[in-house]
Amino acid sequence: MKKLFFLSVVILLLAFKQQNKIKVLFFGDSITQAGVNPGGYIMRIDSMSKQQGINKYEFIGAGIGGNKVYDLYLRLDKDVLAKNPDVVIMYVGVNDVWHKSSSGTGTDADKFEKFYQAIIDKLKEKNIKVILCTPAAIGEKTDFSNSQDGDLNEYSKIIRKLATKNALSIIDLRKSFLAYNLKNNPDNKDRGTLTTDRVHLNAKGNQLVADEMWKLIQTY
Amino acid sequence: MKKLFFLSVVILLLAFKQQNKIKVLFFGDSITQAGVNPGGYIMRIDSMSKQQGINKYEFIGAGIGGNKVYDLYLRLDKDVLAKNPDVVIMYVGVNDVWHKSSSGTGTDADKFEKFYQAIIDKLKEKNIKVILCTPAAIGEKTDFSNSQDGDLNEYSKIIRKLATKNALSIIDLRKSFLAYNLKNNPDNKDRGTLTTDRVHLNAKGNQLVADEMWKLIQTY
Amino acid sequence: MKKLFFLSVVILLLAFKQQNKIKVLFFGDSITQAGVNPGGYIMRIDSMSKQQGINKYEFIGAGIGGNKVYDLYLRLDKDVLAKNPDVVIMYVGVNDVWHKSSSGTGTDADKFEKFYQAIIDKLKEKNIKVILCTPAAIGEKTDFSNSQDGDLNEYSKIIRKLATKNALSIIDLRKSFLAYNLKNNPDNKDRGTLTTDRVHLNAKGNQLVADEMWKLIQTY
Amino acid sequence: MKKLFFLSVVILLLAFKQQNKIKVLFFGDSITQAGVNPGGYIMRIDSMSKQQGINKYEFIGAGIGGNKVYDLYLRLDKDVLAKNPDVVIMYVGVNDVWHKSSSGTGTDADKFEKFYQAIIDKLKEKNIKVILCTPAAIGEKTDFSNSQDGDLNEYSKIIRKLATKNALSIIDLRKSFLAYNLKNNPDNKDRGTLTTDRVHLNAKGNQLVADEMWKLIQTY
Repeated sequence: MKKLFFLSVVILLLAFKQQNKIKVLFFGDSITQAGVNPGGYIMRIDSMSKQQGINKYEFIGAGIGGNKVYDLYLRLDKDVLAKNPDVVIMYVGVNDVWHKSSSGTGTDADKFEKFYQAIIDKLKEKNIKVILCTPAAIGEKTDFSNSQDGDLNEYSKIIRKLATKNALSIIDLRKSFLAYNLKNNPDNKDRGTLTTDRVHLNAKGNQLVADEMWKLIQTY
Repeated sequence: MKKLFFLSVVILLLAFKQQNKIKVLFFGDSITQAGVNPGGYIMRIDSMSKQQGINKYEFIGAGIGGNKVYDLYLRLDKDVLAKNPDVVIMYVGVNDVWHKSSSGTGTDADKFEKFYQAIIDKLKEKNIKVILCTPAAIGEKTDFSNSQDGDLNEYSKIIRKLATKNALSIIDLRKSFLAYNLKNNPDNKDRGTLTTDRVHLNAKGNQLVADEMWKLIQTY
Repeated sequence: MKKLFFLSVVILLLAFKQQNKIKVLFFGDSITQAGVNPGGYIMRIDSMSKQQGINKYEFIGAGIGGNKVYDLYLRLDKDVLAKNPDVVIMYVGVNDVWHKSSSGTGTDADKFEKFYQAIIDKLKEKNIKVILCTPAAIGEKTDFSNSQDGDLNEYSKIIRKLATKNALSIIDLRKSFLAYNLKNNPDNKDRGTLTTDRVHLNAKGNQLVADEMWKLIQTY
Repeated sequence: MKKLFFLSVVILLLAFKQQNKIKVLFFGDSITQAGVNPGGYIMRIDSMSKQQGINKYEFIGAGIGGNKVYDLYLRLDKDVLAKNPDVVIMYVGVNDVWHKSSSGTGTDADKFEKFYQAIIDKLKEKNIKVILCTPAAIGEKTDFSNSQDGDLNEYSKIIRKLATKNALSIIDLRKSFLAYNLKNNPDNKDRGTLTTDRVHLNAKGNQLVADEMWKLIQTY
């Protein structure tokens, strides 16, 4: 009888625990879309958590290739709020800058900030915890001679300002990628250190992003 | 006593009439911003209505230079809904196309449609009547050799599609401007017939827009 | 002895004929680069000439992907003049327009004309016959709603003006492609009628270009 | 009689001196075009030379607004070689980068190098001494967050490489401007320290350029 009671308690606790899994949603562009592929940064975070015997998180990928900040805004209800996440990690900005030259449809800096803030507002309204990321790179050269370095630096400053203004955590991938390249890219190559093609992450890039995010996720 | 009663009735009627004025709001970019200047198309509509002794409309300009469709979206609550208009005339699209080449921050065609629809949805929700306009011109040459003619034609098709889909009235300025230029611009000049600078309206351009809009406004 | 004499004469005649072959060089971008592939327009011209038993032409492909008018200018000496062609068919303009939106490095209309004229001057100086072509298409929609239609029309007008000014033959591919699509593309699709991808030629596109060119080449 | 002889000698010497003046030509864009205005950098160099009693140089402005490297190439014969300069100071690159975003007609990096080299070749062929300059700035922020910083750094590297490869002197304005701003622009403003509008030189900017150039000119 006692045993049975004990078992029920365990079952109840497990069920409770299941219900209480912290949903972490990754909201972004093609980099995040690839994050759920084998070797992708979201898969790596999932593996790391399991290796460490930590079972309290559920990880949800919500990345779509080519997305800019206002694409995230337009699909926020459907792809994020509808899934009731506890934590949302926003990783956006590369296409807002890149599309300026690749299709003439980048995002003005002031509109980037407005839509980014509008997303933060909607997430906070639902008591969702928000983590911001700066856009890591379009080109890995370390002497600021990648075409879009000026804009990436500016848009990263906007994101840092938004983090401060809204009292949010930030993962400063732009800084981490530069620091890593300064050490590991002595020939000033534009790809191959953390990216395959100047933008999308290779194994080392995915691991770096996973490490930075996992460190912060565990504080929730 | 009788006089006093009569006076009250008149006052009441006036107040009633005042309350019942149909608010027509013009929502757009620099072309609409200039519409409230002397000689601007909104001023012309106001004058025409007064000359015809029609006093039931109130005209509200809500144009801001450089605005694209998502700028309209971002300021919809503050600049439109807060003013409780009965009718909103949307006149946008030039900058969505133009900014592609002038600053690399034009609007993708599919996002143009999404934000446009989102504005229509919010206006309809408040039972506001919506009138759409196609973007008239960036250059007045009539042989489709103005740089942005391809995109202006495409974005105009999107607006026509939205009008049909949402069962809304449309003022097809792009067609009207072309028709007018085919008659009045035999030397195929890129400005000077209806615009001063390929985009912004001269007196004739303002009058043409005023005429087209006034014709439709009177049906409300 | 007589036979030997006869044979020598034949050999001499063949040699003479060989020397007298009219060298036709195709100078252009990726469309022309693909022209020497199986099924490409240059290969088709070569086949047609052989089928008709016409053996007096030698066809030389000189197309390089991504080339704009000033790329042709920069490699004129090495890739054209060094080969002593009798006739040069210039087919350029698509990238001058397209690169405006795809990389921000299109060619200004006035510079397009200057470099085009500079190439004509250098070819004429060597008594090379020059045939001009207008850029066929970036998108096959027939209602001028392909993004670059405005510019393609404008740059085609420049090429037509250059043909007139320099008294040169012109193959107006832009007109031919539009005419063909008006007949054969009733659904207003942007690709698939004469191109595979809005720009590069499918079998029908290669044949149309080959037909137009072959007609004109035979007059030399 | 003696007097007359003396006078002739003086006249001859003056004529001789006149003939022997070292012609320094400034070849560039709107920044150089403004250089011949009162307060412009060329006027300042002229004033400095006169104040120092140095009379052996003749300064010729040859700047045209909006010019890119291939504009310089196209007008090299007429505007430079026809004037038989001894020294040519090339100051170009801002528009090659800027026009990418402002009109979609910037210059590809590899073409920038090719046309730049072609100009150097033509100048060297005439035994003209060539001095290169890096493009100073499009925006004066010192943390590499000006939109075009990436490209300006890259194109400056190309010019430095060309200087080395061709054994030419270089005035590295990009480095000088950054160094000056690091000292004198503590608020990280994008204009107002050396430029009026992020690009065109104010009094201090003109003086800085004049100083750097005058230092080098005197070695000829």
